[in-house]
Amino acid sequence: MADAADVKVERLLINYKTLEDFKKFQAYGNQEESMLRDLENNIVENDSESPFYGIYIGNTLVARMSLYKQSKKYDRYFEPPQDYLILWKLEVLPQYRKRGFGRKMVEFAQSFNLPIKTNPNMESREFFEKMGFKPASYELERDFGENPYIWMPEGVKEAEGKSEEKAKTNSK
Amino acid sequence: MADAADVKVERLLINYKTLEDFKKFQAYGNQEESMLRDLENNIVENDSESPFYGIYIGNTLVARMSLYKQSKKYDRYFEPPQDYLILWKLEVLPQYRKRGFGRKMVEFAQSFNLPIKTNPNMESREFFEKMGFKPASYELERDFGENPYIWMPEGVKEAEGKSEEKAKTNSK
Repeated sequence: MADAADVKVERLLINYKTLEDFKKFQAYGNQEESMLRDLENNIVENDSESPFYGIYIGNTLVARMSLYKQSKKYDRYFEPPQDYLILWKLEVLPQYRKRGFGRKMVEFAQSFNLPIKTNPNMESREFFEKMGFKPASYELERDFGENPYIWMPEGVKEAEGKSEEKAKTNSK
Repeated sequence: MADAADVKVERLLINYKTLEDFKKFQAYGNQEESMLRDLENNIVENDSESPFYGIYIGNTLVARMSLYKQSKKYDRYFEPPQDYLILWKLEVLPQYRKRGFGRKMVEFAQSFNLPIKTNPNMESREFFEKMGFKPASYELERDFGENPYIWMPEGVKEAEGKSEEKAKTNSK
């Protein structure tokens, strides 16, 4: 049985097979439908690069995630403001869980040595904490319905949020 | 048995009872924990206004949602850019579903006559479509892990996104 030592994380190409593979994942939504439409309308070329990375076992896509490098211009999470990765739609197909594939994916993201922001659901928070993530201080006007979790390589700090400023003012 | 005709939507006040009530809702997360911390640290006063609205039956909070008015300065969804509402964490406790409380909450949000943006999970998309919402055209750099759904009062149009521009360029 293949485990994390036997597989590699690779960048996924947009084509009909990938988009068909995506339908097996629970978080399939507007993003994938938009990619499919763009492919059908020749707006993107077959086999063009996607923001998705995944793990194949043989011909089967068993895990995937989306990664986007956000410019420091828009950074509201880290200090000093810097380029960071947004990680979303990390998912391992149910029958392939508990083999280290999720860990392998996150380690791949961490290997860029940039801070990472994600928005895990309740069930996957513990996993992200094991991977060294922590909840970001919640800021309404930045986070709305999110529960942002962040990971920082050495030397990076969390941006000082409004709530911390408030706390300081208050404790004077 | 109380139904939607017998209840009203009201703005929730931040206090220990509200924050205890919130724990019954599945989407409890960083936002609620941050409010609790702020209350404990006297950063917000007891009974101060929250971004949450809800329905009480007697003393029981049976439904809630969060609403935030986003400034037109940040509007990337509507044409022309305008103030709009972000709706999130709409949830009715399981034993109170199928009585029109969800509909009552969304109608309350719509009564402001501003466009609305939400990010429903897979299970609630059909409900939002019934309420007149539609999927926004997906734009990676705006939407990331979201599946944004929007509702527009008369006279408001969706902002022309990049994908539509691409489609036009392509069909020339």
